[in-house]
Amino acid sequence: MKSFSPPTIRLMGPGPSKVSERVLAAMARPTIGHLDPEFIRLMDEIGSLLRTAMRTENDLTFPVSAPGSAGMETCLVNLLEPGDTAVVCINGVFGGRMKEVVERAGATAVVVNDEWGAPVTPDKVEAALQENPQSKLVAFVHAETSTGALSDAQQICRIAKNHGVLVVVDAVTSLAGVPLEVDRWGIDAVYSGSQKCLSCPPGLSPVSLNKAALACVEARKTPVQSWFLDLSLVAAYWQGDGARAYHHTAPVNAMYALHESLIALHEEGLEASWARHERESGVLQEGLSNLGFEFLVDKKYRLPQLLSIRIPEFVDDEAQIRRHFRNAFSLEIGAGLGPLAGKVWRIGLMGAGANRDNIDACLSALASIFET
Amino acid sequence: MKSFSPPTIRLMGPGPSKVSERVLAAMARPTIGHLDPEFIRLMDEIGSLLRTAMRTENDLTFPVSAPGSAGMETCLVNLLEPGDTAVVCINGVFGGRMKEVVERAGATAVVVNDEWGAPVTPDKVEAALQENPQSKLVAFVHAETSTGALSDAQQICRIAKNHGVLVVVDAVTSLAGVPLEVDRWGIDAVYSGSQKCLSCPPGLSPVSLNKAALACVEARKTPVQSWFLDLSLVAAYWQGDGARAYHHTAPVNAMYALHESLIALHEEGLEASWARHERESGVLQEGLSNLGFEFLVDKKYRLPQLLSIRIPEFVDDEAQIRRHFRNAFSLEIGAGLGPLAGKVWRIGLMGAGANRDNIDACLSALASIFET
Repeated sequence: MKSFSPPTIRLMGPGPSKVSERVLAAMARPTIGHLDPEFIRLMDEIGSLLRTAMRTENDLTFPVSAPGSAGMETCLVNLLEPGDTAVVCINGVFGGRMKEVVERAGATAVVVNDEWGAPVTPDKVEAALQENPQSKLVAFVHAETSTGALSDAQQICRIAKNHGVLVVVDAVTSLAGVPLEVDRWGIDAVYSGSQKCLSCPPGLSPVSLNKAALACVEARKTPVQSWFLDLSLVAAYWQGDGARAYHHTAPVNAMYALHESLIALHEEGLEASWARHERESGVLQEGLSNLGFEFLVDKKYRLPQLLSIRIPEFVDDEAQIRRHFRNAFSLEIGAGLGPLAGKVWRIGLMGAGANRDNIDACLSALASIFET
Repeated sequence: MKSFSPPTIRLMGPGPSKVSERVLAAMARPTIGHLDPEFIRLMDEIGSLLRTAMRTENDLTFPVSAPGSAGMETCLVNLLEPGDTAVVCINGVFGGRMKEVVERAGATAVVVNDEWGAPVTPDKVEAALQENPQSKLVAFVHAETSTGALSDAQQICRIAKNHGVLVVVDAVTSLAGVPLEVDRWGIDAVYSGSQKCLSCPPGLSPVSLNKAALACVEARKTPVQSWFLDLSLVAAYWQGDGARAYHHTAPVNAMYALHESLIALHEEGLEASWARHERESGVLQEGLSNLGFEFLVDKKYRLPQLLSIRIPEFVDDEAQIRRHFRNAFSLEIGAGLGPLAGKVWRIGLMGAGANRDNIDACLSALASIFET
């Protein structure tokens, strides 16, 4: 066995997205201790940059030391106790995963179902809360990575607030790609991922919880089932003046990369990043339409940064085509998941990858399937 | 805010340890997809290299996508169900953490206590198992990072086998630093960390489970409380021929680094690595003795790669001295934890950091405290 030399692949699947040279270079800087004063300063800066990116003033805003699924678990297992009820909206894979996590926390999930490819229907959330007044929270996915549908987070939050319940939002794919207004919309707990529109390597899950969410955590009667994800312990490492309490050893170099990707976002500007995703996606969508592709998601709810396109009927073996793209074009696009497997391809145009060069390369590859 | 330039610090605390240039360079290679065929090949190689490093043939041998605490949780929450009993040996911080995790899994922890700085007493484990025949497993720390004591894993495993219970071993600090024979000793589940004697950045936790442990997981009556750490799901991503099932997005670049650090270990040879830790630590220990330092741990149980030395009585503010080492000597050594806070310093001589240059620098810094 020898050292690993990865091929250079154009990452246009559902994530990881393109990681720029400056972020890779940051990741390779010398490792320092997880309690070193300079590392504490870095943690503080990451918190501050994440607050800007998430549009929140929440003190407890930090990256969980594990991928997005762990961020999901962090929010849900800290807020829920055995016997609680949570309204969980499912319109794709990740809503389904939320239900799994809710139930493993000993809580009951009241499911609000919508079609895969459609957004969450706010009226159904209203009905579920009326029928289940004992509910503690509503959980939904802002931007469903498995379909590319954007739900109206603001409207769902408003409904939840009217019922006095907390809101947990999956912003894994939405953060930095489309508007996300954590404080203005009244999101109580939110989690995201490093490898989507932040264009950082996978492995970290930024989360943020407001005072109402933390009050709920503090009022628990039972310990959080996960020691690793227990916010009352993790917060002592991420917060406070001066010395921090050791909890776990943070992934130091991964934090360097996240910091650099947040600096890059800050330099571009959050609203400029949203606008770039919208603009470049418009170009890509026009090109896809011109090739004859149909979109899974209605234009009104279509995420700019993740497009599910229907696989043409003449395609027998879609996996073979993706392998061909990978080998002949050095291009990665994503397969469909669950009921959409074999039916759609998912094209990511995220973060540093949302550029004209990627669009042209992707359209060239896709055009080639009509040529044989 | 600007890009982060970490200082170059000589890492001689309890971890992270020195990360060599080749490992940092590997981490900065282009990100590829977590389902890319080349990444699957990398995963297979990591599994194979970990088997060599852990001396096991276990199929399920892989790094959990999170730090060592998550590896601990992976082993315990998969093996334990509510109502189970586990014998947990505590002779430092990490045994105490195991108890926390056991109890949060709804199991009862029967605690075997030993002094901090002493190894686990096998006779006490024997007595605990005799008194608690309902026990499902014994959990202990092979090399206690909070004290530097090495326990007789082989003997404890033998006792556990005689009682027909499983054994879970924390090998976070032992792996690659002292002999660890997973198969020969009959360890059923083991977890480690990337940032100790493997000299990789923190963030990954190699684990390995044998057939008996997996049979126990398969026989569960209740779902594993963590979706993220559920081995029945994670295994489908890490194992099998051909396509792998998506579970979570693996920390791709962190895996590059782990692979490179395992290649470096393979090149040196596992036994050569054990011998180097032993040899270099002998030099350091002699130097420390010559300076008048006393060791917390008796020579018989002293870990070569982590030495706890008693802080001299004339030292009023030990934190100030560590800060001085950090600022004037660019040297990090570790503080004592829990009851040892203010009483000991912990000096790590791990992985690529177990070299003469580090020894000299550490002894110079420590000598300086006697000069004023």
